[in-house]
Amino acid sequence: MDCRKALMEAEGETEKALQILKEQGLLRAKKKAERSTTQGVIEAYIHAGGRIGAMVEVNCETDFVARTNEFKELAHHLAMQIAAMNPKFLSREEAPEEDEDIDPQAACLLLQSDIRDPDRSIQDTIDETIAKVGENIRVSRFARFEVGSQKS
Amino acid sequence: MDCRKALMEAEGETEKALQILKEQGLLRAKKKAERSTTQGVIEAYIHAGGRIGAMVEVNCETDFVARTNEFKELAHHLAMQIAAMNPKFLSREEAPEEDEDIDPQAACLLLQSDIRDPDRSIQDTIDETIAKVGENIRVSRFARFEVGSQKS
Repeated sequence: MDCRKALMEAEGETEKALQILKEQGLLRAKKKAERSTTQGVIEAYIHAGGRIGAMVEVNCETDFVARTNEFKELAHHLAMQIAAMNPKFLSREEAPEEDEDIDPQAACLLLQSDIRDPDRSIQDTIDETIAKVGENIRVSRFARFEVGSQKS
Repeated sequence: MDCRKALMEAEGETEKALQILKEQGLLRAKKKAERSTTQGVIEAYIHAGGRIGAMVEVNCETDFVARTNEFKELAHHLAMQIAAMNPKFLSREEAPEEDEDIDPQAACLLLQSDIRDPDRSIQDTIDETIAKVGENIRVSRFARFEVGSQKS
């Protein structure tokens, strides 16, 4: 239906129709990004015989989606990613702008390569689940503890 | 052996000997409290169908003790305590002195009543495990997430 409309709007030009569809898709994702996410789950993952632990809060729009396997698997995967890849910040916006020692791709969870599929970012993985469940999804916070990494 | 020495020191007076033993015991616990704790475990506990999560780092002196059931059970119990009782600070020292709205017994993990045995504090529970395993034990940090408790 979207395709037909786009083709009509593009007066039959396929290239133009594809451009219209792409813009519509982005618009739809943007619209979802504005929707408030008050439901969700807390997930934790303990690694390396109890020496590393990660905990994450992942939010969605409804309790219904929070209970789906797709959503729970995403939360579990994110906890594993945090344990393995030790991100310092959630997103580029949270990382200090002025610090040149920071490599955003390594330090920011959403920009990191997905350990399960290094060709895509964690944000790509989240976007995929957004497409599957049809709700906005946000990672709101995470914590990662490693034995002895904090001064006592 | 300690008892005999104490009785000799107290010249046969039982009351005095008990006092000496008590002081020795406190001294021993204090000595342990100075020992560095670089080993330990990270433990996590997820509650209420994924709506509440707690993670804690508990440290001891050796990897050997970190692998014992006593120690692992303490860590698990502390994670459950944190999930259930929502402490804000680790100890009295970490809580802001000037804030009169804070009830230390409710806000500080180590001062809270143990959910399993409300007559004693969490510090008492930790001291009991210290006595069992013969090593200093410290809780160095914890985190508690509840879905939607953070502004998005």
